[in-house]
Amino acid sequence: MTISELGEFGLIEAIAAALPRSERTIVGIGDDAAVLTAPDARVVATTDLLVEGRHFRRDWSGPADIGAKAAAQNLADVAAMGAMPVALLVGFAAPGDVAVAWARDLMAGLADECARAGATVVGGDVSGADEIVLAITALGDLGGRDPVTRSGARPGDVLAYAGVLGESAAGLALLEAGLTEPAALIAAHRRPAPRYAAGPEAAALGATAMIDVSDGLLADAGHLARASGVQIDIAAVRLPGHPGLAAAAAALARASTAGRDDPAGDDPVGRDAALDWMLTGGEDHALAATFPPGRELPSYWTVIGQVRAGQGVLVNGNRVTGRAGWKHFSD
Amino acid sequence: MTISELGEFGLIEAIAAALPRSERTIVGIGDDAAVLTAPDARVVATTDLLVEGRHFRRDWSGPADIGAKAAAQNLADVAAMGAMPVALLVGFAAPGDVAVAWARDLMAGLADECARAGATVVGGDVSGADEIVLAITALGDLGGRDPVTRSGARPGDVLAYAGVLGESAAGLALLEAGLTEPAALIAAHRRPAPRYAAGPEAAALGATAMIDVSDGLLADAGHLARASGVQIDIAAVRLPGHPGLAAAAAALARASTAGRDDPAGDDPVGRDAALDWMLTGGEDHALAATFPPGRELPSYWTVIGQVRAGQGVLVNGNRVTGRAGWKHFSD
Repeated sequence: MTISELGEFGLIEAIAAALPRSERTIVGIGDDAAVLTAPDARVVATTDLLVEGRHFRRDWSGPADIGAKAAAQNLADVAAMGAMPVALLVGFAAPGDVAVAWARDLMAGLADECARAGATVVGGDVSGADEIVLAITALGDLGGRDPVTRSGARPGDVLAYAGVLGESAAGLALLEAGLTEPAALIAAHRRPAPRYAAGPEAAALGATAMIDVSDGLLADAGHLARASGVQIDIAAVRLPGHPGLAAAAAALARASTAGRDDPAGDDPVGRDAALDWMLTGGEDHALAATFPPGRELPSYWTVIGQVRAGQGVLVNGNRVTGRAGWKHFSD
Repeated sequence: MTISELGEFGLIEAIAAALPRSERTIVGIGDDAAVLTAPDARVVATTDLLVEGRHFRRDWSGPADIGAKAAAQNLADVAAMGAMPVALLVGFAAPGDVAVAWARDLMAGLADECARAGATVVGGDVSGADEIVLAITALGDLGGRDPVTRSGARPGDVLAYAGVLGESAAGLALLEAGLTEPAALIAAHRRPAPRYAAGPEAAALGATAMIDVSDGLLADAGHLARASGVQIDIAAVRLPGHPGLAAAAAALARASTAGRDDPAGDDPVGRDAALDWMLTGGEDHALAATFPPGRELPSYWTVIGQVRAGQGVLVNGNRVTGRAGWKHFSD
């Protein structure tokens, strides 16, 4: 059955019936608006759009993975403020010939990722459209702590990250090349697994600034540097080696050379590919945060850089500007 | 200049610079998420999608009107819970060839309607897309009152509405027929003006159930009846006469007959058109609410019906089922 056969109200009922409720939900799906508890007397709110063909592809990811990833990128934004995710609102626009089962699996993926983060889906909207668009809003609770913004980094602080870097970008490169291994990286691209609790924990540890790494470490460190009015120098040697990324780079280099008339030509996946993915790949939704010097951090935080007076982002003391800059720098 | 020339970050900066901030905004646009005060310790949240060609047409409405209307339909959902609107998050997806000025005017319209409701735009997202999609999330504050849901209507209550009914539908019919008068109705279609304060006021007056009239009075009264497990009987004679709607019906009848080979054929804009628009037209975002019997209401509420034991919606004691039912009933 397609969603146009089921109709808007039928689709909403089918979706709502499968969603769990939370004790924080005073009024859930089915009224003009949802009502949630906000015991902290503040609320954290963020929204993201995902458009088919630009943010996901139905031939590369199943509906549950697409839903989980859409949820993850919003829930991670809440965590990056130092808050715990509480609720999601989901706008879903799609052509009428999309199968109801596809939409239901998408919503199940959204709900699964919410459950991983301790949140629930409390409302939404459905509409027809020529292409599939997901509009996700996530709400969160600061639990009495101050929000950790992008603007609090100070000279002397260290830069650290929690989570994984580069896996999603490597998985995307594998999919683009038609490869299926290493499968773990393709899975990481399809369904990132942010460590949501690291956000509130970082706030409690005294993080001075924090950001969800969605545009790539260099770009997002650049956002921190700009908002805080500081310079951030990343020591590439501090980024842990990742055998999976190296294997992916090798597989891509082999595939790239195999199909070439001119194997000596421009090679997009050189030996620096693994480091490039870690520095410029987004979508893993690691957290990057700055902490005061000397602060003892749990082992899931890796210190990779230093905050100084100045501006911009350096790698090993060399200035870079976003992805293009790193590309240039890495030549 | 087009939005693809300006780029995502440039567009966000251009939009953010023009938006006012509120004292309730702790963290505004430019971080991973917004942070707002929620002094009531609860938050009201609702989301809606608007898709070009389905919810608006750029050849029928300018960007400021499209923005204002998109805001209005979400702000009205907050008011219909008995809450005051506080904040809006705006997702904007569009083809790259849309002019930056168009996007800026859209956002100005959103901000204007927010100001009318006492709210501000606190966050959002932009993306490329093949068609324009607006994804709006509104947050609201109950101010210590209980939320007014759809499910509290009880036999003996009266049904009343505040705002206007049928004007937007009449304006749409005029646009569809290529007519330009009555201009006030076309303006009402382009930019409805919900009476947001009536929502919290209704809550304070003891409203037992409330809904934003977005699908049409009959359909939305049906939602109230179903959620509350009651029957609602609307007395058509209680709906005030509306000379503008009658003039629009007459103009459409003339235009329809003028172009006809067979003027005696099926007439879509008969003498009942005005009543039909009031009963089935959505998008004016009037509020419909039920109140206990004998409750004295301010003059901007018009009592138009009676709640009884049973189910469904009646007009003048005759059963109807949605728009189709009323059409049938009105033959």
